[in-house]
Amino acid sequence: MRSDGRAADQMRPLKITPDFISTAEGSVLIELGNTRVICTATVDDGVPPFLKGSGKGWVTSEYGMLPRATEERMPREATRGKQSGRTLEIQRLIGRSLRAVTDQEALGERTVWLDCDVIQADGGTRTASITGAFVALALAFERLLAAGILKSSPLIDSVAATSVGIVDDRVLLDLAYEEDSRAEVDMNVVTTGSGHFVEIQATAEGRAFTGSEMQDLLALAAAGIRRLTDEQRAVLPLKFSARAR
Amino acid sequence: MRSDGRAADQMRPLKITPDFISTAEGSVLIELGNTRVICTATVDDGVPPFLKGSGKGWVTSEYGMLPRATEERMPREATRGKQSGRTLEIQRLIGRSLRAVTDQEALGERTVWLDCDVIQADGGTRTASITGAFVALALAFERLLAAGILKSSPLIDSVAATSVGIVDDRVLLDLAYEEDSRAEVDMNVVTTGSGHFVEIQATAEGRAFTGSEMQDLLALAAAGIRRLTDEQRAVLPLKFSARAR
Amino acid sequence: MRSDGRAADQMRPLKITPDFISTAEGSVLIELGNTRVICTATVDDGVPPFLKGSGKGWVTSEYGMLPRATEERMPREATRGKQSGRTLEIQRLIGRSLRAVTDQEALGERTVWLDCDVIQADGGTRTASITGAFVALALAFERLLAAGILKSSPLIDSVAATSVGIVDDRVLLDLAYEEDSRAEVDMNVVTTGSGHFVEIQATAEGRAFTGSEMQDLLALAAAGIRRLTDEQRAVLPLKFSARAR
Amino acid sequence: MRSDGRAADQMRPLKITPDFISTAEGSVLIELGNTRVICTATVDDGVPPFLKGSGKGWVTSEYGMLPRATEERMPREATRGKQSGRTLEIQRLIGRSLRAVTDQEALGERTVWLDCDVIQADGGTRTASITGAFVALALAFERLLAAGILKSSPLIDSVAATSVGIVDDRVLLDLAYEEDSRAEVDMNVVTTGSGHFVEIQATAEGRAFTGSEMQDLLALAAAGIRRLTDEQRAVLPLKFSARAR
Amino acid sequence: MRSDGRAADQMRPLKITPDFISTAEGSVLIELGNTRVICTATVDDGVPPFLKGSGKGWVTSEYGMLPRATEERMPREATRGKQSGRTLEIQRLIGRSLRAVTDQEALGERTVWLDCDVIQADGGTRTASITGAFVALALAFERLLAAGILKSSPLIDSVAATSVGIVDDRVLLDLAYEEDSRAEVDMNVVTTGSGHFVEIQATAEGRAFTGSEMQDLLALAAAGIRRLTDEQRAVLPLKFSARAR
Amino acid sequence: MRSDGRAADQMRPLKITPDFISTAEGSVLIELGNTRVICTATVDDGVPPFLKGSGKGWVTSEYGMLPRATEERMPREATRGKQSGRTLEIQRLIGRSLRAVTDQEALGERTVWLDCDVIQADGGTRTASITGAFVALALAFERLLAAGILKSSPLIDSVAATSVGIVDDRVLLDLAYEEDSRAEVDMNVVTTGSGHFVEIQATAEGRAFTGSEMQDLLALAAAGIRRLTDEQRAVLPLKFSARAR
Repeated sequence: MRSDGRAADQMRPLKITPDFISTAEGSVLIELGNTRVICTATVDDGVPPFLKGSGKGWVTSEYGMLPRATEERMPREATRGKQSGRTLEIQRLIGRSLRAVTDQEALGERTVWLDCDVIQADGGTRTASITGAFVALALAFERLLAAGILKSSPLIDSVAATSVGIVDDRVLLDLAYEEDSRAEVDMNVVTTGSGHFVEIQATAEGRAFTGSEMQDLLALAAAGIRRLTDEQRAVLPLKFSARAR
Repeated sequence: MRSDGRAADQMRPLKITPDFISTAEGSVLIELGNTRVICTATVDDGVPPFLKGSGKGWVTSEYGMLPRATEERMPREATRGKQSGRTLEIQRLIGRSLRAVTDQEALGERTVWLDCDVIQADGGTRTASITGAFVALALAFERLLAAGILKSSPLIDSVAATSVGIVDDRVLLDLAYEEDSRAEVDMNVVTTGSGHFVEIQATAEGRAFTGSEMQDLLALAAAGIRRLTDEQRAVLPLKFSARAR
Repeated sequence: MRSDGRAADQMRPLKITPDFISTAEGSVLIELGNTRVICTATVDDGVPPFLKGSGKGWVTSEYGMLPRATEERMPREATRGKQSGRTLEIQRLIGRSLRAVTDQEALGERTVWLDCDVIQADGGTRTASITGAFVALALAFERLLAAGILKSSPLIDSVAATSVGIVDDRVLLDLAYEEDSRAEVDMNVVTTGSGHFVEIQATAEGRAFTGSEMQDLLALAAAGIRRLTDEQRAVLPLKFSARAR
Repeated sequence: MRSDGRAADQMRPLKITPDFISTAEGSVLIELGNTRVICTATVDDGVPPFLKGSGKGWVTSEYGMLPRATEERMPREATRGKQSGRTLEIQRLIGRSLRAVTDQEALGERTVWLDCDVIQADGGTRTASITGAFVALALAFERLLAAGILKSSPLIDSVAATSVGIVDDRVLLDLAYEEDSRAEVDMNVVTTGSGHFVEIQATAEGRAFTGSEMQDLLALAAAGIRRLTDEQRAVLPLKFSARAR
Repeated sequence: MRSDGRAADQMRPLKITPDFISTAEGSVLIELGNTRVICTATVDDGVPPFLKGSGKGWVTSEYGMLPRATEERMPREATRGKQSGRTLEIQRLIGRSLRAVTDQEALGERTVWLDCDVIQADGGTRTASITGAFVALALAFERLLAAGILKSSPLIDSVAATSVGIVDDRVLLDLAYEEDSRAEVDMNVVTTGSGHFVEIQATAEGRAFTGSEMQDLLALAAAGIRRLTDEQRAVLPLKFSARAR
Repeated sequence: MRSDGRAADQMRPLKITPDFISTAEGSVLIELGNTRVICTATVDDGVPPFLKGSGKGWVTSEYGMLPRATEERMPREATRGKQSGRTLEIQRLIGRSLRAVTDQEALGERTVWLDCDVIQADGGTRTASITGAFVALALAFERLLAAGILKSSPLIDSVAATSVGIVDDRVLLDLAYEEDSRAEVDMNVVTTGSGHFVEIQATAEGRAFTGSEMQDLLALAAAGIRRLTDEQRAVLPLKFSARAR
């Protein structure tokens, strides 16, 4: 039994509240246990210099955490004057994950900003951000399609993510912070709705791991992500099935 | 009739959700019409250098806005590498306002951080932050009193704030963004629960104003703040009356 | 009797030296007791992006203090790598105050920079900066009118500022640093030459204040500013009366 | 046949020059084809605050690239005023990889800095850095053991890294820049000398990938790293066998 | 005849106003033609880490220019967020020059800050800063000696500086900005009151120069500096002769 | 006898390895005793704003040092977030020195970046950088001439540099770090191949120096630079004689 009473292959309760921020084209509040993230999608005209004139769009992400999202208050990055290496690494991961399911040509020369801001943190903030950002992105595309700004949906699949790890030599799904902080192996997995891998990041924190352990972790993650994908589709029921590949 | 149908002396609907962030000692989500701010209070041991050894505590504030709190996405301050002049000005105002109702000696050598993060903005974010931060501060002090860490409450009064302004030559209470952006005069007023002034900031945006207009603005603000004070007390019913002066 | 022997409603000796910096279009050294500020006005072609093509000009300000303007040397902001919140707040106030008396259309698509650099500080540096910057601005406009670059003066009124405060429960005009540092209430008032308010910033430092105290402070400030306006006109005798509204 | 004539499972020529920088305790020039990295190890007394008093040491890394290491000159990070997200991500990876084979208690309260500076880049700079940094670290520990500063070697295993990827649907070992820039899948693998995984980072650049492709990539990487481990041991012949697990 | 009518070996009019800033221990306004610099000396207890416990003091300098010191307004370094290379180079030069005439042991573990702020610039700001900073330093030491804080003067000689150059193939003393900007060779010379060199910085701007030209430039500079030394002594008449070596 | 056994007028062993970095148009590794610097030349189209439309090119330099180039590890400037005053001063000197031998019109509107990165430091890094950067520049121009991009060589002379100094009252050529750190006088001299001066920077570190000492230092430097010029020509044998003045 885990510290919060879950089974090894059990995910924390998930809740996705669409349209949480009324100023944004697309937004959600995603809550996974005590981890809560606001994700918004902004679609701007124009692209970064390296895409100018290419006819292709860009999808990028910024990630932040409110200072008191954690048990101990963390200094605000705007006050420190720079984003930490951890923040940069996470927002690069979110951006790559969402680009993997976007048809940049269908998007046209537009930039989508996915802002993921953690208001409460209990482990798994980067994977919750990816799962939530996908819904915000899909909602924004719905709105642009409805307004005739986009002719066809740029989405080619859904994408979702979870963490898995080895704690006390047991393979666990969806680590809470307490588990994550003492995990021997920590792994983040991003897959498409059709079950293919987009990103795998596995790190030995306490001891190196074997190929067989790697297989067990991947299998557990795949099962978890199937559930996340179902939850995403529940928020976007008819529309999503119409444009998924 | 104002653009959202309110009377000149009518405040937008107010909602204060206490304990919105479970990781913080004190927290609220304050919603004033479409303006929504998360306020958290963190109590740390220790004080800034200029208070070391004085036996007195410190109350300070940091303010931020999610990039898509506004209709147009604003660049993230952590990415730009510094806080704007507007942000610094606001967080200094919040800090001064809350210090005005805190007995620094009763607090002892502790620092309270009041983080006010705007998740959706429609005018009045600085005054909503002050009103909400007071509740977060009071909740944090409740918790420290209950835990025996504080012997007596450091609160000497409540504090709340509102904006007033002159728009199209009419004196209006609680300006929404659309009104604020075309106001001739814009004024923020902070008062204690007992009705004394803590801060007054009046700015001629379009034309200079007279002493008589100043009086009208102050009277309208005072009426509005009385209602905010009542709402604060509704969230903190018995406890607050016991420690207010 | 105040610590420097002044009456409660007495301003410190004022001296305005026009054309103090020969490289600038307009400049003064303004000395108010021991507070001394160099103000220069620079008129550049072009405006910030948000005014491009509008036909309107812009007036902005930057404020600084030499490291040893104060009794204790302060670290240089250029060395620290950023301007403090106090500096940003002051230069925003100066800019707003001067814009309030400038006809942006008569200015045309030009930007005026008002640099206020404190070479010696003894309280009241921000209000002295406003009073001095107005003279520098007027001198620069004179020069542009004489050169035929401007067709008509963009000045619609004069502007000046003073501080007032409550110290030991007495209402005092023009606080020196020693008074300012122990004031219960501190207030900066900016008015036009015709006596209307441009900015009022009142702050309770030690205790909240009443509406009646607020009236006393405003009355004392108004009297003080009339004297400042006279001094400004003495430096700019015939020319100014010709273009004031 | 690959663009440089290699077989799919063939690594580029590898050369490790030990003691390349005579000022450092440990150093190498590692050359993998046209990728060339200077790695130095510095051992300082003291540890970061979070380890003070723990009796444990710390291993960290900084990574840089000379501006003209690449075909196009890249702006210098010292000039831009900050390290890029890519740089921070790489140096965090190098640090974790080397910590995975260091016994922090045997190191004692010392900090090892592993500086990896790319003087010429043709793909695989982060994996070459890990492979080279291990040798620099081992050389530095040799020196400290010889000097009696360390009682026993803190090394618990060797560590090395390689990249693999899918290019034109073929699984390739050790991608050169030209291959990397058009890879569909890019994967960096870090393993210990005894063949266990320390880090796996797989990214879909062009298309998502299957579990079966993942297996092929891991197998190819494992074979490549065995060769790198042999080369490391050739530079550190007798000494290394004595302290490896 | 030079553009301002001077002979080749003629210096611009010099004026040194001592005690220009009443808040500082030592200060001057130095005016050399249209170049005007405020120099202040601040003596603080304590030294930088590399001198702690050595019994020796430190003399350092910071240099700045008001934005409108020049004909064209220059962006403020505090706004740009960093000091330029030119500024850093100049303040390092001033610091070295003043340290050359200070007995660091007689100073004791104190730090002297020499702030040189150019309020108007017409060439030669760095050499005027050195000449003026020496007087500010001497005045500050006078005050500390009078107060019994220093037992003996730390000054071992005076120091002054001038610029010389080759313009249109003529060797000229004390270049004004117009001359400096088209000089073929530009040279700054710092010497002690007893005529020895402290710094020589010669730069070919337009063409390389010969050893013979170098001799002519040095001779002209030496003559100029003798006059500056006389002016310094006129401001510090009896006192200085007593403590010079 | 000097600490490394050299005579007073003896330079350390010099080795110039051309084409050290294959990605750059021109590059060398220059080794002077234990001082080793990688110099690369990059030729880009375009010039800084102040030269746009002038038909003239620009030559600039950036200088850096690997953290462990020195006996004690120095913090990385990219990590500290800014270049030190020393770095800026050196790269400005290198840029000026190379511009002195470049015909900016023959270069056309192109910018040459000379990157000098010290991989091992033992005194004289700035003068070795100048000497090496000249060879890198000449090699880059060779390549552009061969490709027909340049019609004629922009080089009008060669340039090289050395340090001289007074240590223990003896005049020494080419100071190693140990000598430099205790030198009474330190001097860097840059001359053209035809023997004219480009830069002279002499600094009294311990005591002021006389005109006669200055002459001795210059003569010793001139002899040293003749030998450096010969070594440069040995690397660039026929080609260089053809285009030197």
